[in-house]
Amino acid sequence: MTTPATPRKRGRPARSSAGAEPAARDRILAAARNEFAEHGYDKTSIRGIAKAAEVDPALVHHYFGSKEKVFGAAIELILAPAMAVPDAVHGGGSREGAGERMARSIMGIWENPVARLPLLAVMRSALTNESAAEVLRELIQRRVLLRMAGDLDVPNPELRAQLAASHMIGISMLRYVIKMEPVASADPEEIIAMVGPTLQRYLTEE
Amino acid sequence: MTTPATPRKRGRPARSSAGAEPAARDRILAAARNEFAEHGYDKTSIRGIAKAAEVDPALVHHYFGSKEKVFGAAIELILAPAMAVPDAVHGGGSREGAGERMARSIMGIWENPVARLPLLAVMRSALTNESAAEVLRELIQRRVLLRMAGDLDVPNPELRAQLAASHMIGISMLRYVIKMEPVASADPEEIIAMVGPTLQRYLTEE
Repeated sequence: MTTPATPRKRGRPARSSAGAEPAARDRILAAARNEFAEHGYDKTSIRGIAKAAEVDPALVHHYFGSKEKVFGAAIELILAPAMAVPDAVHGGGSREGAGERMARSIMGIWENPVARLPLLAVMRSALTNESAAEVLRELIQRRVLLRMAGDLDVPNPELRAQLAASHMIGISMLRYVIKMEPVASADPEEIIAMVGPTLQRYLTEE
Repeated sequence: MTTPATPRKRGRPARSSAGAEPAARDRILAAARNEFAEHGYDKTSIRGIAKAAEVDPALVHHYFGSKEKVFGAAIELILAPAMAVPDAVHGGGSREGAGERMARSIMGIWENPVARLPLLAVMRSALTNESAAEVLRELIQRRVLLRMAGDLDVPNPELRAQLAASHMIGISMLRYVIKMEPVASADPEEIIAMVGPTLQRYLTEE
């Protein structure tokens, strides 16, 4: 079902095809997300992504460049819900309840089974491949943690934002990956109630 | 360099060889640890372990049974330092400083580079393979968390022990796997000082 491999010039496609561009790019990106989610970073190739998107591999290179770059774009899509966490934390401008809002927004992402599988794939890829870890590190740092830390009025805001994030990452590991009881089956609200004050301390107290 | 595949009866070796048994078993276990640490769960085989230990694969089966069982024995060896965490937490019988002792004992394990690589391999295996996750879950649960929770005088001791552990797992992920700054280069004592009160709250307060 792949597009026949017509010879394709390097560089941007001719202007006349510009209207079709976003659709092809989006299709490649959606395919990349699925391929990385299903097979992990190591076993995903530009060729496999192109096949799943029914385009020529050259088009994947054209839009994204390297495998690392297309992985970056795919996890940006996968992590899109996480980008909203800093807004939730600082929601309403009130320091009060910031920890609880952080816990609730992150638990909300993981509790959505559609979001969970690609997230697990991203964690798995970062654990098994240094390039994938670097892409994830840069993205989380720039799009989530620095934005969150920027609004904190505490010493060491970046370290504190990371300690808060690390707690939620660890809970996600135990609950959704290792599936250890009782945390795996605990009511999300119970976890949020216990974790909220911890995050609050990191985010607001000196 | 493998032992010639002499025909071998099933069951325990004859009594006359009993003196050699522990040495062979230990050699297999050490080889298993190295193989799992280097290649992860999926890519490690009984045959590969036997080859590294210079014994017949039948001897690996004889001592350990399945690949899952030999993995269990290997990670029991790898996680041996973690088994001491509950003792550190409850050291001296004092509740005061329990959180700091927990943080310090776990950071101490990860800061040892010899222990770190196999630990990373275990985490990686648990993330990528359900059998490996199950073995790890059972071992951590029984040998670390239940022992730690058993001595806690709080409601929900198991959930609280797991929340405390999850925080340290998340810090380990960010610091040693994703290597995100500033937590990756922070002084261990600074991390212990900030995390200790959090763990203390989980371990002792209602």
